[in-house]
Amino acid sequence: MDVEQSAIRPLSQRLLQLLRDRGPLSRAELADRLDVPRPRLLTELEALVGSGIVREAGPAASRGGRRSTLVELRGDLRFAAVDLGAASIDVEITDGRLEPVAAYSEPADIRSGPKVILHRVSEILAKFKVEGAYERLEAIGIGVPGPVSFRDGVPVSPPIMPGWDRYPVREVLSREHGCPVVVDNDVNIMAIGECYGGVAHSVDNMLFLKIGTGIGCGIYLGGQVYRGTDGCAGDIGHIQVDSQGPVCACGNVGCLEAVFGGTALARDALAAARGGRSPALAERLAQSGTLTARDVADGAAEGDPLCVQLIRQGGRRVGGVLAGLVSFINPSMIVIGGGLSGLGHLLLAEIRSVVYRRSLPLATGNLPVVLSELGPRAGVVGAAVLASDLAFGRPS
Amino acid sequence: MDVEQSAIRPLSQRLLQLLRDRGPLSRAELADRLDVPRPRLLTELEALVGSGIVREAGPAASRGGRRSTLVELRGDLRFAAVDLGAASIDVEITDGRLEPVAAYSEPADIRSGPKVILHRVSEILAKFKVEGAYERLEAIGIGVPGPVSFRDGVPVSPPIMPGWDRYPVREVLSREHGCPVVVDNDVNIMAIGECYGGVAHSVDNMLFLKIGTGIGCGIYLGGQVYRGTDGCAGDIGHIQVDSQGPVCACGNVGCLEAVFGGTALARDALAAARGGRSPALAERLAQSGTLTARDVADGAAEGDPLCVQLIRQGGRRVGGVLAGLVSFINPSMIVIGGGLSGLGHLLLAEIRSVVYRRSLPLATGNLPVVLSELGPRAGVVGAAVLASDLAFGRPS
Repeated sequence: MDVEQSAIRPLSQRLLQLLRDRGPLSRAELADRLDVPRPRLLTELEALVGSGIVREAGPAASRGGRRSTLVELRGDLRFAAVDLGAASIDVEITDGRLEPVAAYSEPADIRSGPKVILHRVSEILAKFKVEGAYERLEAIGIGVPGPVSFRDGVPVSPPIMPGWDRYPVREVLSREHGCPVVVDNDVNIMAIGECYGGVAHSVDNMLFLKIGTGIGCGIYLGGQVYRGTDGCAGDIGHIQVDSQGPVCACGNVGCLEAVFGGTALARDALAAARGGRSPALAERLAQSGTLTARDVADGAAEGDPLCVQLIRQGGRRVGGVLAGLVSFINPSMIVIGGGLSGLGHLLLAEIRSVVYRRSLPLATGNLPVVLSELGPRAGVVGAAVLASDLAFGRPS
Repeated sequence: MDVEQSAIRPLSQRLLQLLRDRGPLSRAELADRLDVPRPRLLTELEALVGSGIVREAGPAASRGGRRSTLVELRGDLRFAAVDLGAASIDVEITDGRLEPVAAYSEPADIRSGPKVILHRVSEILAKFKVEGAYERLEAIGIGVPGPVSFRDGVPVSPPIMPGWDRYPVREVLSREHGCPVVVDNDVNIMAIGECYGGVAHSVDNMLFLKIGTGIGCGIYLGGQVYRGTDGCAGDIGHIQVDSQGPVCACGNVGCLEAVFGGTALARDALAAARGGRSPALAERLAQSGTLTARDVADGAAEGDPLCVQLIRQGGRRVGGVLAGLVSFINPSMIVIGGGLSGLGHLLLAEIRSVVYRRSLPLATGNLPVVLSELGPRAGVVGAAVLASDLAFGRPS
């Protein structure tokens, strides 16, 4: 992780982040919180007011003595946050405090390739602009479902994104929209979102487990995302959990993703329906001609034993991998998110039971294992955080 | 990890670390390398020379213009580095540049408890003093074979160290020797040592796998040791590798340590010798009445098939766990150390083969898996690094 870069953030960046996270503050409060001499703060602030990114916001409550004036971020500051999933596009426009002012989601197949998908993203952003959601964007943050070279702003050998390998996502979007762009892995932005505005707020070391079509893990250590040497840290979907298990799309056998996750669950559900082992699934299959993880969740909710069993088995597999990772990384919290977190407390209970039984007691003594609070919004929230960090880090 | 603390190191600390790592430097070189204005450097340096920790060291080679004077660390600066293993005490006294000026090792049973062991450490240090290895110590670094609260300087629920739980190791040694003391886990100090003076020099993200009596992992990320929320990160010996495996001392079944490591290997060797499955081991058992990992290594060197098989099986188990950790943390290097790394290339080959086959290709593309360069010295080197960092970080 880029320790130096984060810890020696310039004063202007820390100041803008504070106004983003706390809202309007007086000069006195800013000087206190940033722990800098007042003259230095005033000089910095003057420059930011001059550049128009910060504005006066009326008188502060009195602390005795001369009354201070509040300052705040400019009201029309806008960031774009984009979360590309395997099968979806989610976009939000936020204000300077990262509150959404517009949001839109639609299904999309990431395999359509970068030209089609990014063109669609630009269309959505253009529509927002026409509708008045923004006049200009300070920065765009975008997450993609595969490994990313964070430094270069490009996907790197992404297994489920044909045509995207080293495609200049950052450059293309930046040229199109005339603002800086930051590209990250989709699970990383979810982890950042959950740490910024969700259940993991103020947690130092956190694992964010995304269980969707596939399975991935966001790693948040010492207050920042850890991305690994090649940008593929957290790619746990291909850890072997069963040496006799099914063949995985990656060519190995018994990978976690091959035994659980949206794809595996749909496959097992189909086999069960056709094999006459689940009346609930057979009925759904007859109705819609196909089965998804959603059907298994509904079946379980109705008490179909096979659906319950499929979720339990999956939870045990995930829990087994997670137990090892807990012993290894000794986190302060584990958050479960992604589409299959909709399987809810049945899945959570099974994961917890394995983690608490199998991990080192010292590592689980105070370890909460919880569901994501932001749910499907985790990704866009994280993308907005990255976008604002990027914009605030540039000399204004 | 303590980002703030490391990244905003005061100038004096960075200066002293530079003299430790590079040796004598001119004022001009120091100003260049530390990237500070020359007047500020000179003020700082004057204070350090005044306090006696830094001294003049003759004229520097000319760079044109006025000839500069070299400065260096005081010649009689001394650190003590202590590495407590499950069955050994290793102590080194180093000079300011961390070169050993005295070293001593002896067998010792950590289960004798903190009073006995720390008393013995103090006796060894006292003997060094009498022999003239040091006059006074600037700091002591000590590693212990169990989880440690780095902040509090105490072991925390260490499974193989009865009587040591929250024993005030730092306080006791500090009072006895009148200098600051830093306490860490033994695998962490090995990882630090290997990154400072071994094969992982200048590597950012590194896993140090210690295979000794037990198995543990040092995690070095972004240029610093990652210790986890409770100080027990890297404790991978109890990751389950075989749900049908032998019962482990921890109460679970099929833990990595229960199937491989010094204890497990000795157990398997004994069973093989008694079961008539290995002539080489049977002969050694008859000679000495006991068997250790060393006997298996010797048997393998002589070509005893069962010894080779035991090592290969162990390597595969370790490799399986490591493959998952590589997919998870995407390190730049893996270093194998500890007593059983003496099993050498047979073990290494087996570990490599599993890691390269089972981990994500993107994560293994440029991933060296190598044996420790410092061998049994890795721990004391790391302890000396920690001791000097501590001493240099204090206002002089």
